[in-house]
This record gives sequence, C-alpha cells and structure tokens, in this order.
Amino acid sequence: MKRLLFLLAACWSLFGCGGSGDGPRMLVTETPDRAPGQTDVLGLRCDPLPVVRVGFIGLGMRGPGAVNRFTYLEGVEIKALCDLYPERVEECQRLLEERGFPRAAAYDGPQGWKALCEREDIDLVYICTPWLSHTPMAVYAMEQGKHVAVEVPAATTVAECWQLVDTAEKTRRHCMMLENCCYDFFEMATLNMARHGLFGEVMHVEGAYIHDLRSLNFAAEEEGGYQGWWRLDYNEKHTGNPYPTHGLGPVCQVLDIHRGDKLEYLVSLSSDQRGMSEYAAAKFGGDSDMAGRDYALGDMNTTLIRTRKGKSIMIQHDVTSPRPYNRLHTISGTRGFAQKYPVRSLAFDPDAHSRLDDEALEAMLAEWEHPVTREVGELARKVGGHGGMDFIMDYRLVYCLRNGLPLDEDVYDAAEWSCIGELSEMSVRNGSMPVAIPDFTRGAWDRIKGFRHAMAE
Amino acid sequence: MKRLLFLLAACWSLFGCGGSGDGPRMLVTETPDRAPGQTDVLGLRCDPLPVVRVGFIGLGMRGPGAVNRFTYLEGVEIKALCDLYPERVEECQRLLEERGFPRAAAYDGPQGWKALCEREDIDLVYICTPWLSHTPMAVYAMEQGKHVAVEVPAATTVAECWQLVDTAEKTRRHCMMLENCCYDFFEMATLNMARHGLFGEVMHVEGAYIHDLRSLNFAAEEEGGYQGWWRLDYNEKHTGNPYPTHGLGPVCQVLDIHRGDKLEYLVSLSSDQRGMSEYAAAKFGGDSDMAGRDYALGDMNTTLIRTRKGKSIMIQHDVTSPRPYNRLHTISGTRGFAQKYPVRSLAFDPDAHSRLDDEALEAMLAEWEHPVTREVGELARKVGGHGGMDFIMDYRLVYCLRNGLPLDEDVYDAAEWSCIGELSEMSVRNGSMPVAIPDFTRGAWDRIKGFRHAMAE
Repeated sequence: MKRLLFLLAACWSLFGCGGSGDGPRMLVTETPDRAPGQTDVLGLRCDPLPVVRVGFIGLGMRGPGAVNRFTYLEGVEIKALCDLYPERVEECQRLLEERGFPRAAAYDGPQGWKALCEREDIDLVYICTPWLSHTPMAVYAMEQGKHVAVEVPAATTVAECWQLVDTAEKTRRHCMMLENCCYDFFEMATLNMARHGLFGEVMHVEGAYIHDLRSLNFAAEEEGGYQGWWRLDYNEKHTGNPYPTHGLGPVCQVLDIHRGDKLEYLVSLSSDQRGMSEYAAAKFGGDSDMAGRDYALGDMNTTLIRTRKGKSIMIQHDVTSPRPYNRLHTISGTRGFAQKYPVRSLAFDPDAHSRLDDEALEAMLAEWEHPVTREVGELARKVGGHGGMDFIMDYRLVYCLRNGLPLDEDVYDAAEWSCIGELSEMSVRNGSMPVAIPDFTRGAWDRIKGFRHAMAE
Repeated sequence: MKRLLFLLAACWSLFGCGGSGDGPRMLVTETPDRAPGQTDVLGLRCDPLPVVRVGFIGLGMRGPGAVNRFTYLEGVEIKALCDLYPERVEECQRLLEERGFPRAAAYDGPQGWKALCEREDIDLVYICTPWLSHTPMAVYAMEQGKHVAVEVPAATTVAECWQLVDTAEKTRRHCMMLENCCYDFFEMATLNMARHGLFGEVMHVEGAYIHDLRSLNFAAEEEGGYQGWWRLDYNEKHTGNPYPTHGLGPVCQVLDIHRGDKLEYLVSLSSDQRGMSEYAAAKFGGDSDMAGRDYALGDMNTTLIRTRKGKSIMIQHDVTSPRPYNRLHTISGTRGFAQKYPVRSLAFDPDAHSRLDDEALEAMLAEWEHPVTREVGELARKVGGHGGMDFIMDYRLVYCLRNGLPLDEDVYDAAEWSCIGELSEMSVRNGSMPVAIPDFTRGAWDRIKGFRHAMAE
C-alpha cells in the first residue's frame, strides 16, 4: 500500500514526560519530489479563450444539468458528449436540440471518454462520473492539453491528489474541482463579509455534509440509483469522511487556505454503522445480502483540522441517518458569527448574544451580497441547479477561462479538500491518531495573500 | 506531575505497516487500585432522610439562588450558611427571613467551610465555590459523613476525580455534581423519547458550552465579576475544554454511560486564542497587563469522544467569542433526530428530511414530557433558576435523599464528566493525540442496564 512515516510532532513539556522515543506522534504520508523543471501553478493564467469549447463525460446524475446550464452561458460551444450508455448521450442531444443548439459529437462505452479527451477541438473536459474515475480521467484530459472541471471529490486518495497536482504543474492546465457549495448565496455573502473584516479574525469554522442518502444508496440503477451500486460499494469499503468537500470548500476560502494559511493536521472519529444495515433490513429483509454486509462507513464522522495559523475546522459527514439536511457553514471570529444551517444566522459584537432578526439579516445579506452573485445571481436562480449555485460556478469557470484569469478553485484546492477522504480514514482506522495534511503547494502556501475571485480589468 | 503510560491502541492492518513499535498510541493516565474492602457505590441507597438538613458553602454567584430555591422545597432545613465574606452570609440570612424561615448558623473566612462541614446537625453540604475548591471541600464533607452536592465541574483534574470516587466509596456518601442542564425541559423530554426508542439506536450526540463570558471574565469583583479573577486566571493557565459538563451531562444520560456503555477515549483540538486579548485591549488598552497576558485557553475547543459501544460524542467550548448562546444537545439515532440549539428541532423517519413544524414539535414535547418535569415543572417555572431547571435538580436531589433512593447523577457521573477538562487539555497540548478516558467504576460500567430516574414505590 503506502509507506507511512512517523514524526515526533510536538514537545512533551507540560506533563513532564521527557523520553524522546515516547513523544506524541502523527501519521505522515509521503510528499513526492517535484520533477526537475516543474514549477507550481499558483495563480495560473492561460491564454484567454474567446470561446470555450467543452466536452462532457458522464451524463447520469450530474451531467445533464451541467449540459443544460452551459446552454445558458455566453462564449461556449458544446462539442462532445460521452457516457457509458448511448441512450444517455442521446437524451442530452435532444436537450441541446430543444435549446436550439447543434448536436454534439457522441461517445459511449467504457473507452469513449478517452476518445473525447483526444479531440483537437476541445478546450475543457467536464467530468461528472463516479468518484473512482475522477482522477484518471482528469489526468488523461490534462495530458491531452485540456483544462479540466471535475466533480467532487476530485480524488479519493492522497496519491491521486498528487497525481492531479503533478499533472497540472507539468501540463500547465487548469484543474478545477466543481465545488458548487462555494457559490451559494449565503456562502458568497459571508465570504465577502469575512474579506471585509466583519467577523474580525476568523478563529473557527465548520462545514458538513449531512444528507440522508439511504434511499438513493439502496436504489437499483433502474430505480434512479447510482450506476452499478458504486456509492454503496464505496460505503462498504471505506470509513472516515469520504465526501468532505461541500462543507470544507467554502470555509477554506474564508480561511485563505494556501493563500496565507495551510491545513496542518487532522484527527477524525466515526461512530459505528447501524443506519445502512437497518435500512437494508427494512427494504430487503433481515436475511438479505444487503442487510448482512459489513459496511465500513460509520453513521457519523467528525473530523477536526488545525491550520498553521492556529485556526480550527470541524467537518462532519452523515449520509445514513434520518436528519434534516445540513452543511453547517459556521464562521466564528473575534467580532462576529455566521451560520447557515439549520437556520441562517448572523451576529455581531456587541450584540452577538442573539442572532440578527430576519429583517436585519436580510438587509445585511443584501448589503454584503458578493459582487459575483450580484452580477449573475438573477439569471442563476432562473437557470437553477441547486438553487442557482451550480450555474454561478459554471459562469465563473467560463468567465475565468475566457479572460485568461486564475480559476477561483485551483488544483491545490482540489487536492487539499479531497485528501481529507483518505486521511480521515487513516485517522479513524488508527484510533483517531493525528494525521498530517500534505502541503500540496510544496512550500508556497504563503505566497498569495488572501483568497479572491479574479476579475477582468 | 503525573505518570503517563502509552498503550498500543489499535491494530495497523489497513495500511500495511507491521512494525510493532510504530503502532498508533494513546495517552493513558494511571488508574489507582481500590483499597482493600472498598466497593463501588453504583446504585447507592442510604437511609431515608425525612428531613434533609443542609448547609451551603459559597454565596457569591450560584449560592444565593440555591438558598432561595431550597425555601420552596418540602422536607428541608437550612441549617448553615458559609462564605468567604460575612456580608454575603448576611444577605442570605435576610433572604431566609423574607421567606419566613429562621436564620441559619453563619460561617465566613477562609476556614469557615470546614467548621460547617463538621456540624453534627447537617446531612447535606451544598457547594457553590470557585472550581479549584470543589473537590477539597466535597472530600472533606464526605469524610465528615455528609452527602455532597457540588457545582460543576466537580473536579479539575483526573486525580481529583479519583479522590471523589474513592472518598464516596470509602464513606458510602452520595456525591452529586450539580449538572443542572440535565434537568431542562427539552433535555428531559428528549431523554424520555430516547428511553422509549423514538430515535432508534442513538449513534451520535453533541453538547456544547458556547457562552460569551468575556464581559464577566474581565469584570472586577466589585463589578460583579468572579472572586479574585479566578476564572480568568484559570483561562490563562489551561487550555482544552475546562467546562465540559453542561453539554456532556445530558447526552451521557441518553447514551447510558456507565449504565451499559462507557467513555473510551477522546481527541481534542483548540484554535488559538484571540478573543480575550482583543477584548482586554479594548477594555483596558493595548498596553495593559490584561491585554498582554498569554492566555492558554483557545477561543474554540472541540473534543471528540468514542464510547465502548461505538457511539460518538462531539463537545465544544467557547466562552471568548461573540456568538449566540448554544449547548447544542444533538441526538442522532437510526430512526430520529433532536437538537435544542440554535432552534429546537425534532425529526423522525420517514419524514426526517425536515424538522417538525412548531405545532407538531410542541405536541410531541407535551406528549413525551418527562414524568419528573410533568410533576414539578409548573412550580419550577415559578421559582425559576435558569428557567426552572435548577429547581427541578434540587427537587430531585432532595426527593432521592428523603426516599433513600440512588441519586440521578452519581459520583461516577461527576468524575466522567469532569475528567474531560484535564484529558482534553492533555490531548490539545500533545498535538490532539488520543487520550484514554478512565473507567471510574473500575470494571462495573456494564452492571446497571440503562439510565433511569429512581422513583419511590
């Protein structure tokens, strides 16, 4: 598997235990050397693309919505469509026709995606396939000279994260993980407030993916479930937090991660699993294969992260319990507080003992609406896609590519947010031991000062 | 200081690292041997006390309210009052007179509490002093043959927790930590629901003490602050979660801790501190002594606990950030969900994707109101004390003593909930290393099956 190193992580002064071999330890994964001549892609700018020519891979759950959204964007051409199944490609062709666009080149079958990536007339490959294919497809697309947009998580292992980073650095191509939750209205407004200092110094943040997916995970493909039960299969084999990015992305932007701060280490703890077994027993019977499986994924995982600058992050994952949907999005600073779930809340010194009432809250959100959502929010709400955030994300991706600007979410974000999957699993499988989080910039995390959305002059 | 042992905590199979000396480790504190002849006090019953004769120590912040509440209880006699300052004793004497009760014996000065404990005509010593004196006073009172009720936290170190347990076991006296939050209406109702299986199997719970105490911590005694700045002083010297019991107590009752399950280990992570320094600079000036101190307590601490039966607990502490008050009180099971803060929520399968609306929620809370609050809730709301919960707590304490019943919160609860203070600090000071939580029952955590409030036949 993977070579692990142990490091003496902290001094042992308080409790007077001086033995050098007995100090506290941390699990550390290997950081590969950068190839000679290869440099980082922080703030990467590529040649502006007046028209962004795109090919889509994966037209099951998330793909058709993306194709639809792209028909509302200026300066794009939908050149190619690919799915394992030809009928799904055909459905999206009909969608293009209905929206008044020409049919695209069609690919299907297990190798269709490679042929799509190899086309000469494509600038961007947009990947909406099952998790395990994200990195192989993204890497291949970049190697063919294409920019990449890839669904979350971009990678399922630390090794894959490094593959993405090394490939982006070698090919000088963009690799954006499609973390749509960064583009939701409340997240954008509170990011804007944070940038303007309304929360003071932000010391603690929280995110979550709490979403009861039992009915979806236990649905067959013909019932609308995941292709070949891939997500249930992943839940059977893996614990920790396999899907951390929706909660983590927006709060990492608030904390300027690899733009002045960095994720240092995590500890992770899972409850045992009961939710899937009970659900399967109810649906398929107590003696069924589904009910009898030994699912590794705990019902609740909580992961704590500390940053180099002394901030703390709490991230939760629960897709197997009957609970209301929740991404938390908590921001706690020295002068103010924000939280999105379960109820949108803002509170500021010296009246922070209670949240703003609804009227004051709406007024603040309007006053501090992010310039990006102010510009495109109305159209986004009309096009839809999780209430508009998906469209804002696509809009920004295409805007930055057309203007030759750095993307909002770069390959280091993709790696930092995705690596929590394997690293949290390492911690959980080792009694919640601390695990070091790699510096995917290999030393340059402090060069860019503060997260910002790049804008054309 | 304290001798620490390291244990090989989990196997190292997944990542293929076989070296026996390199396995994951856990910090473990020493469990003292039980003295010959000493036995546990699980389910301790003492002789019924038709009248509970009580003496109060500490009449600053919490004491006067307790004295007042006791004047509303049947079957009690307030025999003695003690405080460092005689004027505080006199204030409570006036309170007794106003309520139509005889004046009590008065004690003051640094040694007054000992004389109070030594009185022959007292059954119960009720302690509301600063944290560091809780255990010494409780131990001394039990050694004088008295039952003890002591404010939270009952102890500030693991060694003190063992002192409480050993003294209670030796003297066969009750030692109840006054964890009032266990007696709040929502907590009691959801505990009742949990006992009746409405949440299915509870897999994850959360509690918190998020309470902006900056103005109180930085107030001089004459401004209503803590005596001799003791709480600020504690925050300067200690990190981790020094005040875990308000969040932890109610959810440990839900999980039947030492009544079928036990706390196994924790990991704890704190942000750095900014809140106190910024507040002190604003109040006293940037060059002031208060602003320049090196406060150890991080703004936010999050502690994760795993139980023997595979449940997870998340506990937070933040008293230095501008945020709305929050104790979370989250209960997540295989069939339902409850959360008290920031908005009271209940959700049940198969409609758990959204919380019950206000009308349905109130109906459920009324239907499942706990028998104890149903009995005494109306009077409790009238007497007051954090909305009634303080009175319900005192009522139950006196009820159990009068009927010779086991107390709701025993000395093992006091130790288990309080020990998180020092153990979380150990974890934080050692890079969030896992720390074993002692079994204060020394092996008997599984003998009692399920938490219950003892009731007279």
